[in-house]
Amino acid sequence: MTETDREVERILESYEQYADTVRFDTECAPNKEIVIEIIGEMRRVLFPGYFDEKKVRKEYCRYILGNRIEFIQYNLKKQVAKALCGECGCCEENVEKRAEEIVREFIHRIPKMREYLATDVQAIYDGDPAASSTEEIIFSYPGLFAVTVYRIAHELVLLGVPLIPRIMTEYAHSETGIDIHPEAKIGKYFCIDHGTGIVIGSSTEIGDYVKIYQGVTLGAVSTRHGQELHGVKRHPTIGNNVTIYSNATILGGETVIGDNVTIGGNAFITKSVSESTKVSIKSPEMDFVNGKGWER
Amino acid sequence: MTETDREVERILESYEQYADTVRFDTECAPNKEIVIEIIGEMRRVLFPGYFDEKKVRKEYCRYILGNRIEFIQYNLKKQVAKALCGECGCCEENVEKRAEEIVREFIHRIPKMREYLATDVQAIYDGDPAASSTEEIIFSYPGLFAVTVYRIAHELVLLGVPLIPRIMTEYAHSETGIDIHPEAKIGKYFCIDHGTGIVIGSSTEIGDYVKIYQGVTLGAVSTRHGQELHGVKRHPTIGNNVTIYSNATILGGETVIGDNVTIGGNAFITKSVSESTKVSIKSPEMDFVNGKGWER
Amino acid sequence: MTETDREVERILESYEQYADTVRFDTECAPNKEIVIEIIGEMRRVLFPGYFDEKKVRKEYCRYILGNRIEFIQYNLKKQVAKALCGECGCCEENVEKRAEEIVREFIHRIPKMREYLATDVQAIYDGDPAASSTEEIIFSYPGLFAVTVYRIAHELVLLGVPLIPRIMTEYAHSETGIDIHPEAKIGKYFCIDHGTGIVIGSSTEIGDYVKIYQGVTLGAVSTRHGQELHGVKRHPTIGNNVTIYSNATILGGETVIGDNVTIGGNAFITKSVSESTKVSIKSPEMDFVNGKGWER
Repeated sequence: MTETDREVERILESYEQYADTVRFDTECAPNKEIVIEIIGEMRRVLFPGYFDEKKVRKEYCRYILGNRIEFIQYNLKKQVAKALCGECGCCEENVEKRAEEIVREFIHRIPKMREYLATDVQAIYDGDPAASSTEEIIFSYPGLFAVTVYRIAHELVLLGVPLIPRIMTEYAHSETGIDIHPEAKIGKYFCIDHGTGIVIGSSTEIGDYVKIYQGVTLGAVSTRHGQELHGVKRHPTIGNNVTIYSNATILGGETVIGDNVTIGGNAFITKSVSESTKVSIKSPEMDFVNGKGWER
Repeated sequence: MTETDREVERILESYEQYADTVRFDTECAPNKEIVIEIIGEMRRVLFPGYFDEKKVRKEYCRYILGNRIEFIQYNLKKQVAKALCGECGCCEENVEKRAEEIVREFIHRIPKMREYLATDVQAIYDGDPAASSTEEIIFSYPGLFAVTVYRIAHELVLLGVPLIPRIMTEYAHSETGIDIHPEAKIGKYFCIDHGTGIVIGSSTEIGDYVKIYQGVTLGAVSTRHGQELHGVKRHPTIGNNVTIYSNATILGGETVIGDNVTIGGNAFITKSVSESTKVSIKSPEMDFVNGKGWER
Repeated sequence: MTETDREVERILESYEQYADTVRFDTECAPNKEIVIEIIGEMRRVLFPGYFDEKKVRKEYCRYILGNRIEFIQYNLKKQVAKALCGECGCCEENVEKRAEEIVREFIHRIPKMREYLATDVQAIYDGDPAASSTEEIIFSYPGLFAVTVYRIAHELVLLGVPLIPRIMTEYAHSETGIDIHPEAKIGKYFCIDHGTGIVIGSSTEIGDYVKIYQGVTLGAVSTRHGQELHGVKRHPTIGNNVTIYSNATILGGETVIGDNVTIGGNAFITKSVSESTKVSIKSPEMDFVNGKGWER
C-alpha cells in the first residue's frame, strides 16, 4: 500500500463519516451550465437584437425566434425533468410529461414577462439621470439583468419547478452581487440602481414603482434551528412608490413599509413604517481631529 | 398552425407592443467580448510581465509591446466606430477616420495612465499592512483592477467615445462589485480597499490621496422623472487626504467633503463636512439579552 | 520612425520610469487559471457527486478519487514551487522537494477540511429556513463556496505557501463578493448568509457557531504608511455563538466581541462588547413628507 493509497483510504472513510456531504448513485441534478445557456437564450427572446452576435433583420426575426423557442423547449424540459426527479427521488414515467407541460406554459408566459420587463426598463430610465438611453440600460445595467433573471425564475417557481429557479438567481447573484430569492413577489416598474449587495428574501412582497439602491437588505430576523420556520413569512412587505436608499436594512415578516415611504441610507428598521413617511438615521457626530476619537 | 406557431405569434405581437425593448435592423453595437479582450491587452501593456502566460524577457519587450499596440489600434478603432455609429444613427463616411484619430490619441495617453496607476499602487501599498508586496497588489487586488479599468474608460470618456466606457466599467463592476462611473473625476494616489459594494456616481469629483472602503456610496439623491437632471452635478465632491470607512453613504451634488476629513463607517451624509473633521455615527445602544429588543 | 514607433518608445520610457509596475525577466508567478482548476478538483474531492458532470457510482468512487488526488498532487506541487521561487527569488534545487512535501501534507488534511465543512453545511441548514435541503446549500449557496475556498486556502497558509492562498480567496471574492483573508482564523459551524460585501481581515479570529450576514466588515482602523503595522493584530476577535446582522462594521485589533452577542444591522463598533449583550443603533427618526428633510 503506497502513501497515496493510504490517503485515498482516509478520504473514503471521511465519505462514510460525513455522509450528508456525499452524493453517490444519485440521478444527476440540473446542469448549471445548460441552465445558464437557457438564461442567455431567454434574454435574446425577451430583448431581441440586443444580445445577438450580428444585426437581427426584422424580416427574419420570426425564424430566429422559432429556433430559440425550440432550443428552450427541448433543453429546459430536460432540466425540469431532472429537477422533478431529484425532488421526488422517483423518476416515474410521467415526469417527462409533466416537464413538457410546465415548459409549454412557461413559454406561453413570455409576453407577460416582456410586459413586466418593459415597465422595469422604463422605471430605471425615469429614475437615473445618468442613463443616456433605454438601450444603454438594456445593454449594460446589472440591475436590469438581475431583475430579468428573477422574472424568468419566478415564473418557474409559480409553475412548481424546484432547484432550477434558485440556480438561476444565484447565477445572477454571482454576476451582479444582487441576490433576489425567486420566491419573492415583486410588482411592476421595479428599479434597482447599481445594486451590489442587495438581498431580497424569499417571502418579501414588493408593490409597484419601488426603487431600491445598492446594499439594501429586505431580510429576516435570524434564527437558530430555523427549519421550524420553513414556509413562514419572515421578510418584509413593501408598499407602492417606496424608495429605499443604499445600505438600509429592513427585517421581519410583520414589518410593513407603507405607500410613498422614503427610507434613508444605512437605516436599520425592524418595525412597520406608516405611509407617506420619511425615515432616516440621526445626523452623525462631528469631532475635530484632535478630539478623542475611535481612530487612533 | 401548431401550438408552437401560436406562441411564436404571440411573442411577435409583444415585440410590436413594447417596441422600446426590441432592436431590429440596427447596426451592431460594440461587441462586449472584444471590449473585454481589449481591457486584457491594455492591462498587459500597463503592467507588462504581470498577466502574461510566460516570462517576458526585457530584450523582447519592445516587440511584444508593438504587437499589443497594433491589436489595440485595430480592434479598439472598430469598436469605437460602431459606438459612434450607434450614437448618431448615421454611419457616415468619416466615422472610421474619427475613430482612428481617437484611438491614436488614446494610445498617446498610455504613459499618463501608467503614471496615475503607479500612484494608485503606491497608495494601496502604503494603506494596507496586509499587503506583502506591490506585486501582490498588482496580481490580486480587485480594487486596483477596478481603478485600472476606470482609468482606461475615463480617457475614452474624455475623448468623446460613447457606450464603450460604460461597458468597460460594468465589466469591472461584475468582476469586483466595484461600480465606478467612467465620467467620475478621480485624483492621484486613489486607494480602494476590498471594495465590494462601492458606488461612485457619474458627477463625483475626488481629490488626491483618498482612501475608500467597501460598501461606500458616493451617490445622488433619488429622483423620479430624473431625465430632466441629465448633465446636472448630482454627486458629491471629495477633497484631498480623505478616508471613508465601510458602508458610509454620501449623497448630493452640493455636498462637499473638505480636505483631511475622516468619515466613520455606516454614516449617512447629505450635507457638507468642513475640513479636518471626523464624522461618525453615535455609539450603538447596548441591551442585555433579556431586555425587550427587536430580535424575538 | 513611424508614429507607432514613437508611441512604443514613449511607453518603453514609462516602463523605465515606473519600474515597480513592470515585471521583466522574472520567473512566472503561479498560474491563476490552474489555481482555479485545482479549486474545482478540490471541491469535487470534498463534496463528491455534487459537481460532477455525470452520476458518480459508489463502486467506482475510489478510482475517481485516486485520479483527482493525482491531479492535485501534480499540479498544486508545480504551482507551490513557483510561489516559493517567487518569494525567495532563488529557485534553488530543493524548492521542488519542499513543494512536494507541502502538498503531501495538504492532501493528508483533506479529511479535516471535510469535517469542518460538514459543520458549516449544518450551520447554514439550521440557520436558514429558506433552505429546503443540505443538497441545495452545497449546490448553490455562495456563502458555502466562499468558506470552502477559505478552508482550502487557510491550510496552505498554515503550510507556509505564499501568494496562492490569496489568489484562491480573491477568486472566491470575485465569484461571490465575499472577501475572507486566508490568514483569518475561523472556528466550526460558520454560517454566512447571502454574503455579498462581507470582509474578514487577515488577523480576525472567529469562534464556533458564528453567523454573519451580507455586508459585514471585520476590519482594521485605517492607516497611512501602514507597512509598519505588517504582522500586528489589527482585526477583531469574535467569540462563540455570535450573530452579526447585515452591513455592521466592527473594527480594530483590540475589539473583542464576547460569547452570545448579537450585533444589529448597520452598527459601527470600535470597542469591545461584553458577552450576552445585544447591540443595535438607535431607532431612526421619522419625518412627515412635508417636513424639511435631506431629500429635496
